[in-house]
Amino acid sequence: MKGKKKYVYYFGDGKADGRGDMKDLLGGKGAGLAEMSHLGIPVPSGFTITTEACLEFYKLNKTYPKGMWEETLKALKKVEKSIGPKFGDPDNPLLVAVRSGARASMPGMMDTVLNLGLNDQTIEGLIKRSNNARFAYDAYRRFVAMFGNVVLGVNRERFERTLEEQKIVTGVHSDTALSVDSLKTLVTAFKDIVLKDTGNPFPEDPLEQLRLGIDAVFNSWHGKRAQTYRRLNNIPESWGTGVSVVAMVFGNLGETSGTGVAFTRDPSTGKKKFFGEFLFNAQGEDVVAGIRTPLPIDALKKRLPKAYNDLLNIYKKLEKHYTDMLDIEFTIQDGKLYMLQSRVGKRTTAAALQIAVDMVKERLITQKTAISRIDPYQLDQLLHPMIDPKAKLNVIAQGLPASPGAAIGKVVFTAEEAEAMAERHEKVILVRTETSPEDIGGMHASEGIVTARGGMTSHAAVVARGMGKCCVAGCGEITINEATQTFTTRGITVKAGDFISLNGSTGEVILGKVALIQPQLGTAFNTLMSWADKTRKLKIRTNADNKRDAAVARRFGAEGIGLCRTEHMFFEEDRILAVREMILADSLEARKKALAKLLPMQKKDFIEILREMKDLPVTIRLLDPPLHEFLPHTNKDLEALSKEIGVPVTILKAKGQSLHEFNPMLGHRGCRLGITFPEIYEMQVEAIIEAACSLSKKKITVMPEIMIPLVSTCAELAQLRALCVETATAVMARHKQKITYTIGTMIELPRAALVADQIAQEADFFSFGTNDLTQTVFGLSRDDAGKFLPEYVEKKVLPQDPFVAIDQEGVGLLMEIGVKKGRSVKPKLKIGICGEHGGEPSSVAFCHTLGLDYVSCSPYRVPIARLAAAQAAIAGKDEAGHRSTV
Amino acid sequence: MKGKKKYVYYFGDGKADGRGDMKDLLGGKGAGLAEMSHLGIPVPSGFTITTEACLEFYKLNKTYPKGMWEETLKALKKVEKSIGPKFGDPDNPLLVAVRSGARASMPGMMDTVLNLGLNDQTIEGLIKRSNNARFAYDAYRRFVAMFGNVVLGVNRERFERTLEEQKIVTGVHSDTALSVDSLKTLVTAFKDIVLKDTGNPFPEDPLEQLRLGIDAVFNSWHGKRAQTYRRLNNIPESWGTGVSVVAMVFGNLGETSGTGVAFTRDPSTGKKKFFGEFLFNAQGEDVVAGIRTPLPIDALKKRLPKAYNDLLNIYKKLEKHYTDMLDIEFTIQDGKLYMLQSRVGKRTTAAALQIAVDMVKERLITQKTAISRIDPYQLDQLLHPMIDPKAKLNVIAQGLPASPGAAIGKVVFTAEEAEAMAERHEKVILVRTETSPEDIGGMHASEGIVTARGGMTSHAAVVARGMGKCCVAGCGEITINEATQTFTTRGITVKAGDFISLNGSTGEVILGKVALIQPQLGTAFNTLMSWADKTRKLKIRTNADNKRDAAVARRFGAEGIGLCRTEHMFFEEDRILAVREMILADSLEARKKALAKLLPMQKKDFIEILREMKDLPVTIRLLDPPLHEFLPHTNKDLEALSKEIGVPVTILKAKGQSLHEFNPMLGHRGCRLGITFPEIYEMQVEAIIEAACSLSKKKITVMPEIMIPLVSTCAELAQLRALCVETATAVMARHKQKITYTIGTMIELPRAALVADQIAQEADFFSFGTNDLTQTVFGLSRDDAGKFLPEYVEKKVLPQDPFVAIDQEGVGLLMEIGVKKGRSVKPKLKIGICGEHGGEPSSVAFCHTLGLDYVSCSPYRVPIARLAAAQAAIAGKDEAGHRSTV
Repeated sequence: MKGKKKYVYYFGDGKADGRGDMKDLLGGKGAGLAEMSHLGIPVPSGFTITTEACLEFYKLNKTYPKGMWEETLKALKKVEKSIGPKFGDPDNPLLVAVRSGARASMPGMMDTVLNLGLNDQTIEGLIKRSNNARFAYDAYRRFVAMFGNVVLGVNRERFERTLEEQKIVTGVHSDTALSVDSLKTLVTAFKDIVLKDTGNPFPEDPLEQLRLGIDAVFNSWHGKRAQTYRRLNNIPESWGTGVSVVAMVFGNLGETSGTGVAFTRDPSTGKKKFFGEFLFNAQGEDVVAGIRTPLPIDALKKRLPKAYNDLLNIYKKLEKHYTDMLDIEFTIQDGKLYMLQSRVGKRTTAAALQIAVDMVKERLITQKTAISRIDPYQLDQLLHPMIDPKAKLNVIAQGLPASPGAAIGKVVFTAEEAEAMAERHEKVILVRTETSPEDIGGMHASEGIVTARGGMTSHAAVVARGMGKCCVAGCGEITINEATQTFTTRGITVKAGDFISLNGSTGEVILGKVALIQPQLGTAFNTLMSWADKTRKLKIRTNADNKRDAAVARRFGAEGIGLCRTEHMFFEEDRILAVREMILADSLEARKKALAKLLPMQKKDFIEILREMKDLPVTIRLLDPPLHEFLPHTNKDLEALSKEIGVPVTILKAKGQSLHEFNPMLGHRGCRLGITFPEIYEMQVEAIIEAACSLSKKKITVMPEIMIPLVSTCAELAQLRALCVETATAVMARHKQKITYTIGTMIELPRAALVADQIAQEADFFSFGTNDLTQTVFGLSRDDAGKFLPEYVEKKVLPQDPFVAIDQEGVGLLMEIGVKKGRSVKPKLKIGICGEHGGEPSSVAFCHTLGLDYVSCSPYRVPIARLAAAQAAIAGKDEAGHRSTV
Repeated sequence: MKGKKKYVYYFGDGKADGRGDMKDLLGGKGAGLAEMSHLGIPVPSGFTITTEACLEFYKLNKTYPKGMWEETLKALKKVEKSIGPKFGDPDNPLLVAVRSGARASMPGMMDTVLNLGLNDQTIEGLIKRSNNARFAYDAYRRFVAMFGNVVLGVNRERFERTLEEQKIVTGVHSDTALSVDSLKTLVTAFKDIVLKDTGNPFPEDPLEQLRLGIDAVFNSWHGKRAQTYRRLNNIPESWGTGVSVVAMVFGNLGETSGTGVAFTRDPSTGKKKFFGEFLFNAQGEDVVAGIRTPLPIDALKKRLPKAYNDLLNIYKKLEKHYTDMLDIEFTIQDGKLYMLQSRVGKRTTAAALQIAVDMVKERLITQKTAISRIDPYQLDQLLHPMIDPKAKLNVIAQGLPASPGAAIGKVVFTAEEAEAMAERHEKVILVRTETSPEDIGGMHASEGIVTARGGMTSHAAVVARGMGKCCVAGCGEITINEATQTFTTRGITVKAGDFISLNGSTGEVILGKVALIQPQLGTAFNTLMSWADKTRKLKIRTNADNKRDAAVARRFGAEGIGLCRTEHMFFEEDRILAVREMILADSLEARKKALAKLLPMQKKDFIEILREMKDLPVTIRLLDPPLHEFLPHTNKDLEALSKEIGVPVTILKAKGQSLHEFNPMLGHRGCRLGITFPEIYEMQVEAIIEAACSLSKKKITVMPEIMIPLVSTCAELAQLRALCVETATAVMARHKQKITYTIGTMIELPRAALVADQIAQEADFFSFGTNDLTQTVFGLSRDDAGKFLPEYVEKKVLPQDPFVAIDQEGVGLLMEIGVKKGRSVKPKLKIGICGEHGGEPSSVAFCHTLGLDYVSCSPYRVPIARLAAAQAAIAGKDEAGHRSTV
């Protein structure tokens, strides 16, 4: 901006200095009022002091920048000219409302001050004009209290207490029953409170009131509430707030006055129906306070048809202009309609979908805009049962919203008990300090899972999301006492068998059974998702280890499996024994014997999954976790195993100890197992190709992709690739079948990304394992991070949990290096991501930017990823435009 | 090479087709012989078949490349012309020796075949020429056996057994006593053995003998011995071997003949003294075999003064030509001297230093050449006591050479016992399954340490190197039985109190007490190191946690401390209790109380270290390990602690469990402790600045550098920097002192390197912690890697242990990114390295290439680092010339 800076923007009479797109300078409220003015929509005249003025106010040690006050007075004159009454005129006073307004809506900011401009002189003018002394004094006492509290910092309770006392003294029960005299008395009493509390008399000069009001808005930007809100919502301090000064209009001047709020469409369902509430002879706060029951908006039609028609025309004009559903506030003063606010309305996800799809049909917006309007994070709401919002909840603990949805069941404390009760058709909630892979069966059997420890990517969380099962993790409030089969929280003891309910979308644990709402996807969802599918460039796959999950994901639109973990299969009851036998084998022969038992079971697993995913690619990851994870931990289990395989418990224990690792995450796992025990990977590849051959014989097209985990050097992949090819070739020869399969690798260690050009020479595809990559890039164990990560996020050391959304600066840079180096060798190298991030919208967008081919996520996140991918494509950040490198 | 390839290079008569710098093509031996010919030094004529011919031989499925055989015959003719006798001539036969020779000396290659060309006809000519039938038949029977074994693959023992039988039959005791007839009988018997064993008669045609001999040398390149040697010494298969065919000269033709080996200077001390041994009337193998006692070289002076003078002139000529100490082999035939070999001689480190320094004084070489001649890895020999090489050793176990030197002492199994016995002035060796920080005291008290588990960078290894204490780690052969206070290995049981000896340079554990040699650095060492110091660009610092280590390092030339770990101080007996109290504190107040107890002790530590390192920088790292490392682990210790601090054992246990981590390496440690418990870092900074102030008052210049560990985001460093500055400022104000201090960070996590441009904004210096960086880049816990890393190195998945030498491709690339990004923000940012790699020569060279300012290593490695840094500077790989980036 050149020349003299403009600090004050006038609006009114169908004109405005500002525009709707000047939110940064005028704040949301100021920009909205300016825009409505331009559209010829009646708004009370007023003006907005810019956010720049606010910022300079701070720079200048809380004084106004040069010219601001003069501009303010000039704008005030224009308002007077537009409205008629004059500010401070004892005969016909102009009153104003002073409001704060930042770029984004900030409920943590300053309250509005209404009726500013009243004093012992102007009150007479207001009485005269309104011919309603009660109305005028009621406004006056409200003004003194509001100004005293909001601007002068007097405790609100002092005014309220005095008001209550006055009611007792005069024997009335409601504020509205107070007489004019009582109100007068209150004005005087309130002013006394101000004098006593602040040491200064209540300011009678309207201009001083205005100046103090503006100061208060500016100061509120650094108030405690605003700071907290900014921190919680990532709003930078550097934005500043605007101040809107608007001429008062009164809905409480009689029966031809009133005030209302409305949505231009139904915010719950999205139906195209004007939807709102209205109160005759009332001010805005009365609608919100709920003292009187508002009427449906139709009531207006009969009593004030002109205003009603105006309103209809205005809302249509606004919807057309903003091309969105709006939330509007208006006041009718003596039959004349004024719009006080219009903004894009909040809505449920179902409504958002309906409105977006309808508006495309109405040619208000394009398909791309419709896609961009839906918050992918919110889609979760649609995919899981929800707790009825009308239900009354007895929340007894708060944990992390680890896997969305809701669940009701009886409390159980062990996986075995969960399975036993599920067999008796009882619904259970599994409550554990933390879960381990041995609990998988019990987790399957449960309606939902609660853990006392562990974060958003703890075992419980990851597995639950994979199953689409509700989970509340890291619920530190609850203390489990397994001996007494109870848990305690907030002084309450809950016994095994008691009913609890979970809200996995909020992390709440609720005592008793609550009412649930079942999800319904509906046609709007399907329409919008079909548009998203046309738009996106990323393919969406799913992480699934069994046919059930695979089927769910396919129904949700998955285009293949990006990660089929084989270790979960190892834990199933019928095979864990053979797995343990294999691990405890003393010789290669003994190990091979145990592996031979596993082979047919693994083959069956792969047949089921490959059949479910016929015609689509299935990436199968060979065994990844360290072997000790499969060993029994309790004496009871050890004894059982000892009996079964005939090895003394002492030897089992010694073997377990020799397998113990200080840092299992960085230990003998992944392809390191394949290098040292090639026979394990050999068995798995044999099972995969056997399965493929047997389906291929039935003319079912299968596309297995064999994935080697935890590769850090090219030599690892080269050696294991040779092993896989040799094994696969032998199986195919045996069956006289030709299976098209590929061999690729996880990129989940920093070194793999750093030497991706070497690794690419041996890989048909890359799949970023961003869970482990995040762990190693940060040097941060997700199992242990719970002790300090929440504090890190709270103290702003990290903007967010890097296990939830990809850390683009660190992990992302390494991914970029991996993609570039990989494709420098193989320009068309297929690259995907299969970490938990694959279903997180900002991470999906980042993957699009990197030019990946696909993301893979848990089944219930597939629709989210589809939508996020489409939005990323629309945002147009593709390979060409992405940021520079190191 | 254009036109027709030349496969055969002649030499002799002061001429040669090849040159000394053609080692790649002719092998070391062939090139040496060619070079001596050029120098006019008498060598027996001969020719060398190139390594290229060898490689083509393999390509052509074991046939000679076109023209090679023809060239061979032509060269043979030239030899005949030069020498006189003709190959295969029954009257006057030319005999040849056939030798292999690759680019590098390879003891794993083929043995030489001597006397080739003998058959039942040519033997007569040899008798005639030598007038010595016994000599001739002795040569014949040796040839048949040697050819039969080396070329035809007959087991050597079969010839030897026959020889022994013949001696018994004829009643003689030594080979030399065998009669001509006996030798004739043996020739026949040996040929029979060949016929029976190979199915073919012994080849009588000299040309067939030659062809088979050449084939055998070529084939030996892929023989098992050669393959093993190549693998162990990193020699590529693609080099191939040359074949040298040399006319035989005979030192065993009578008393004017003889053979000798000599070093041009003393290989043990480096003294400038011609040094060698000679045998009259003998062949080379007799000197080596040790059947007769050789005479000192001076003996030649009297008996064959002409030959002796020739030898002196030749060796001086050779030394001047090669500008190095040489190892030469020669033969005198009938008074005429022939040189058979000359090569750079092997020597002890002490000799290498002496020779290098002397040769600079003699103006044979420059200081830079002298520096480059010393192998930094070998310097270790000089710095530690060594086992007397003459001692006979009873090796009972083999572990990793974790910390060099030698030690003798009585076996103890606990750190407490080690300390108790050391107090009684007994020398002990601490034998543990693995050590933990609690063992520090016992390690200090011991002469040496053996562990059954853990690698080159295990706790024991790192701490021992820091102390300069001998250590054998990961000695998996030994099994410790603490109950019986014994360990067993190779069927031997060793009790507590038994003497053992350790060789930390080889990893050997030896039963009993062995003789030791004490190290002496000497003036040559100091001279050469002073040249190195002038040459190098890198500064060399040390890792030291106490004044003793600091003093040692300073004596070894350290220019500051690059890493002073503060946690070791926490383990000392007088403070561990306060540390535990601090950890177990339930409130901030209780924690502060415990910290207040630690403050004066920490201050004392820092005073001692800073005083020892006055005028030099001292980088002090704030607390790094997770807190649970400090807690007691045994019930006994728990009970003792419980009594001392008055907290029940159950609560101590519960607290210990709550601090337990799945992956402590990736857990709540480093700066994460500083963020969540700022009072700990506050105490440490207070102690540092208090110490600095109290020394500063005594006019002692101190240069503390405060280092924040495990930083992964800029925000961590920014917050902790603010804390440090605030604390330091308060302390300085209290003392009215101004201390110059800096605040920097470890770069030890991949993310820190990736966002180094952000972190640099808050850092005065960077120090690469390549231990942890290697762990996270590879996703490899060094505590757990022992299970598969050896197999990885053996299977060539990794070229070497990345905890020993920096992995330049992966870890190094990340370091490069870190340096570039850091200096993009602060071009003069001081950057060092303080991982274990700081004392490893190839890693030091890499740090030089990256343009780092310093490396820091354990005290005993400081001289190694100084030398390696100088060599890197000479090699000239500096910032300008280094490789391109991602």
